[in-house]
Amino acid sequence: MLNQALEYAKENQERFLTELKEVLTIPSISTDPDHKADMQHAAEWMSAQLKSINMSNVQIMPTGGHPVVYGEWLGAGKTSPTVLIYGHYDVQPVDPLELWTNPPFEPAVIGDNLFARGSADMKGQVLASLKAVESIMKNGDMPVNIKWLIEGEEEIGSEHLDDFIKNHKELLACNFCLNTDAGILASDEPSITTGLRGLAYFELRVYGPSKDLHSGLFGGTVHNPAQALAELIAGMHDKNGKITLPGFYKKVRKLSKKEHKDFARLPLNNKLYLEQTGVPALWGERKFTPPERLGARPTLEINGLLSGFTGPGSKTVLPAWAMAKISCRLVPDQTPEQTIKQLKKYLKEKAPKDITWELEYLHGAGAALVSRDNIGIKAMAKSMETVWGKKPYFLREGGSIGVVVQLQKRLGVDSVLSGFALPDCDAHSPNEKLHLPTWHKGIDALIHFFYNLK
Amino acid sequence: MLNQALEYAKENQERFLTELKEVLTIPSISTDPDHKADMQHAAEWMSAQLKSINMSNVQIMPTGGHPVVYGEWLGAGKTSPTVLIYGHYDVQPVDPLELWTNPPFEPAVIGDNLFARGSADMKGQVLASLKAVESIMKNGDMPVNIKWLIEGEEEIGSEHLDDFIKNHKELLACNFCLNTDAGILASDEPSITTGLRGLAYFELRVYGPSKDLHSGLFGGTVHNPAQALAELIAGMHDKNGKITLPGFYKKVRKLSKKEHKDFARLPLNNKLYLEQTGVPALWGERKFTPPERLGARPTLEINGLLSGFTGPGSKTVLPAWAMAKISCRLVPDQTPEQTIKQLKKYLKEKAPKDITWELEYLHGAGAALVSRDNIGIKAMAKSMETVWGKKPYFLREGGSIGVVVQLQKRLGVDSVLSGFALPDCDAHSPNEKLHLPTWHKGIDALIHFFYNLK
Repeated sequence: MLNQALEYAKENQERFLTELKEVLTIPSISTDPDHKADMQHAAEWMSAQLKSINMSNVQIMPTGGHPVVYGEWLGAGKTSPTVLIYGHYDVQPVDPLELWTNPPFEPAVIGDNLFARGSADMKGQVLASLKAVESIMKNGDMPVNIKWLIEGEEEIGSEHLDDFIKNHKELLACNFCLNTDAGILASDEPSITTGLRGLAYFELRVYGPSKDLHSGLFGGTVHNPAQALAELIAGMHDKNGKITLPGFYKKVRKLSKKEHKDFARLPLNNKLYLEQTGVPALWGERKFTPPERLGARPTLEINGLLSGFTGPGSKTVLPAWAMAKISCRLVPDQTPEQTIKQLKKYLKEKAPKDITWELEYLHGAGAALVSRDNIGIKAMAKSMETVWGKKPYFLREGGSIGVVVQLQKRLGVDSVLSGFALPDCDAHSPNEKLHLPTWHKGIDALIHFFYNLK
Repeated sequence: MLNQALEYAKENQERFLTELKEVLTIPSISTDPDHKADMQHAAEWMSAQLKSINMSNVQIMPTGGHPVVYGEWLGAGKTSPTVLIYGHYDVQPVDPLELWTNPPFEPAVIGDNLFARGSADMKGQVLASLKAVESIMKNGDMPVNIKWLIEGEEEIGSEHLDDFIKNHKELLACNFCLNTDAGILASDEPSITTGLRGLAYFELRVYGPSKDLHSGLFGGTVHNPAQALAELIAGMHDKNGKITLPGFYKKVRKLSKKEHKDFARLPLNNKLYLEQTGVPALWGERKFTPPERLGARPTLEINGLLSGFTGPGSKTVLPAWAMAKISCRLVPDQTPEQTIKQLKKYLKEKAPKDITWELEYLHGAGAALVSRDNIGIKAMAKSMETVWGKKPYFLREGGSIGVVVQLQKRLGVDSVLSGFALPDCDAHSPNEKLHLPTWHKGIDALIHFFYNLK
């Protein structure tokens, strides 16, 4: 039955791609209220897919925000394990739109890649799971019980998912979660993610004069809010790239010698990061290597800046306010709650008296680490070895996935983090793309994975 | 004839206001290419006005940018002085539009004020000159020769005016220029401006990664350009509010004891600045008082900031670039050319190797100081004393007016800087307004001024 499923997946490659393109035309941007109808449309599309592959109890379930799509197949019986398959149908915003070579919601295959917003993060990954399950179900029964949890708020911090999980503990009960929202190292370097960073996302506003002023008539008498904001931001790192918020590193777990060695063994080097980012030189905490900085060290990033006149040409304005979007990636055992306090303390200590400020906490999640002894991790490692012909690396990744923390907290289950997006897939950037040969390998790996769990 | 002119101005107050409202409906925003037709419309309106008050040789003359409106009346003969009356028909942009109580190009009188973009800066001032001349011409001849130079690029640095003046030296030949683009201290405190700051306006762009990156997947390995820009901006002032660009203060004239005393005598105090700006506390160079910082000290202001994601909600992006609009107000004997070099030198010394940067110089002008012995200054001082019943203050102002420097350089003539906008008129801000009682006094003062020159 394994071989029939693999054969089915091979024969249906073309159709799988067509269906993926179809869902990629839906601009399901969760952060933008203008796309509410598209969010509903995407949820309905996912629900129809679950029904088409014979899932039971398929529902679009309301949350405080965008709905969750649920479905299940429990025919393997109570003695078999139950896997909760996680996915999200929402995508990131697309600006700056002018940098896209093809329109973000008109999927285009160029060479080996499929270009579209959401192709890699993560509609392509959700489809890989759906198509692996379809390939098995069309040729017999699933070797294990499965449940689907496909949410619509991952890109805005899974704000309402925690309550949803809390309120549906029984429905979602499982042995572990399969989460394909993490990528692999390279098309020929399979990997499984055993650690994720957490997140705390803020908007900081600095207020100066009660209205925009003429910079000639008042410049030199009031503290320019854009300058004051720049001064506050500049002070958030020291010259060694360390973050200066009071107590920020207090709960950060120290890396053991073994962990340093594990990081050093990864097929990652500075040249690779330089190529992937296009920067003239790397930057970061001096005492750690880039993979360590990404996997095991927290960060503070400026995600956006806005103040005064930003159009073409000039305007001699002294702006009334300035705004920064600021987010911290957190590592075990930091929490968003501590980070809020630390950033507030920093601002209270450093903000001058000639301006006022407001800090809004937008969303966040803790960090996560998963044991390599988890049955799902073991099954996935084996299936990758089969498909790629080599053992996968175990990684700690820089991104944040709220649901991993929530499932650990609410259901006590770990997540197997194993998706098939590549590091250069441009998730969250213009020209996001999915590497199709890797995607098809991913579907095969997922088919093996379910059989390995039996 | 003086009394008849004053009487005429009084009788026609209503009509003068109606005509001012008419020109204020034209959105002549010079910096925005979308408003090119409006610029032409405003120029035609000014030209029609000059014709309607019997000026000769009225022309709309091309420049490298927006046209200049010219007109003259030389009937006083060669033994009488010639006054070049300067004005500009362009206005500042109107964003943030949502902060305007009334639409910026739908003039509205509320109480003593006329609200509209350009009401104070400076269509209202141009109309004051036009209506003073009309009041005299309808009741006899002008006591002096006059020429009009009404440009359309003041708000974008009078970029093409310098060439225009250079190419029309004979046409524009005069004894001095009357420039009403400077305001007065208060409705009951007449003043004449004898000094203006210069300007050098820049756009600084900092580039990091070749595209926007996922802040989780790359945060901690590359120098965030928004952070790098903030660091560069933060370093441009020291903790005493002094600007750190190398050599920035080298050419700044020291204030003499007498000049310190003159500044101290002005009816200006910290409370007034706090009220006008709405800031919780004043800021600036510690060793100078606010009026000194505005009139006699240079500044460096951030006029705008833009980077990454600035919409509602969150996007975990590590931006590819960050931009700041930066302008310096200059005092004698600084020049924009020196400032460009100093800012470049600063950036070369301070910018880290892990980012790249580009500095674009947008426009600028030198500073200006005028002698109190100028015949125009004397005539204006006398007319203000007549109308307000008290001697005017002599001021050095914080703003910059390119034409003042250009006329000094090209024609060797000084400018009498005396307009009737108030410090709280919100020039360049939302809800710009003209105080109408002061405007009418201004028209009377200008009528007296021309007679005083005879």
